[in-house]
Amino acid sequence: MNELICRPIGHLETPWATTSDCPRNGRQPDPPPVCRAVVAPEFRPGLASLDGFSHLILLYWLDRSRGGTQELVFTPPFDDTPRGIFATRAPHRPNPIGLSVVKLLGIEDGVLNVIYLDCVNGTPLLDIKPYLARTDSEPDAIMGWLATPRTRHATKEKR
Amino acid sequence: MNELICRPIGHLETPWATTSDCPRNGRQPDPPPVCRAVVAPEFRPGLASLDGFSHLILLYWLDRSRGGTQELVFTPPFDDTPRGIFATRAPHRPNPIGLSVVKLLGIEDGVLNVIYLDCVNGTPLLDIKPYLARTDSEPDAIMGWLATPRTRHATKEKR
Repeated sequence: MNELICRPIGHLETPWATTSDCPRNGRQPDPPPVCRAVVAPEFRPGLASLDGFSHLILLYWLDRSRGGTQELVFTPPFDDTPRGIFATRAPHRPNPIGLSVVKLLGIEDGVLNVIYLDCVNGTPLLDIKPYLARTDSEPDAIMGWLATPRTRHATKEKR
Repeated sequence: MNELICRPIGHLETPWATTSDCPRNGRQPDPPPVCRAVVAPEFRPGLASLDGFSHLILLYWLDRSRGGTQELVFTPPFDDTPRGIFATRAPHRPNPIGLSVVKLLGIEDGVLNVIYLDCVNGTPLLDIKPYLARTDSEPDAIMGWLATPRTRHATKEKR
């Protein structure tokens, strides 16, 4: 198999300088700060017709996650049971690709103003997809072990 | 910046041998066929605690997409207006990472039985994330230019 090599199409600008500054998820801050998805000039033609969508899916490379554990099973800081990495949204994944469903406020000169990001300032952007409610929205999805709020270390809770 | 290199954590087994066999999206087939996400043995510990979730987000590498156009702007087969690649879910993206929200039917021996996939048989699997309705579900999202069904080539329609 060929190597699977990603290249950044831009970067994300957020208020959070380090992973420990980040909120536990993008919906936690009230009000959520406006963040910027800056698309590199050579990729900007790909933004045509994007402005009519209210929500987007952003994929990005969690490049600050490598300092942490690489274990496939770990005990989240807000929990007391070991969980598989694929049953969490923790950043130290075998492929450290982050995903956020964001609300699009506007696009100007290759910069998307969005809310609901939760990642570190400067995170490399990999992809922008239009959010399609008919295939992406499952409002009644059952959240497994995450359905019950844990509070062991509420201030470090990371979802 | 370091190279951003992905490695497959497994592969997807679907009924579709080529991209032209694939449905336009995973919700189109009625009934949707049961597909398999086969996780490689070394990554199976990461599946712990995943079985309580009703829905998952699968990320995968669209390795068959390279034969097509690499244009950032193209006219979809069911449309008559050029659209930016980031305003579509087409597979020939700068980073060919596919995303499906799937329903989890069960897990056995490192194999996830799911419905709502739409990709080619053998597609490399990159990540499994639990679907969290509170951050991932936007049932009222506005779908921009995709809100109006196009029918230029209905049989080749690809969403």
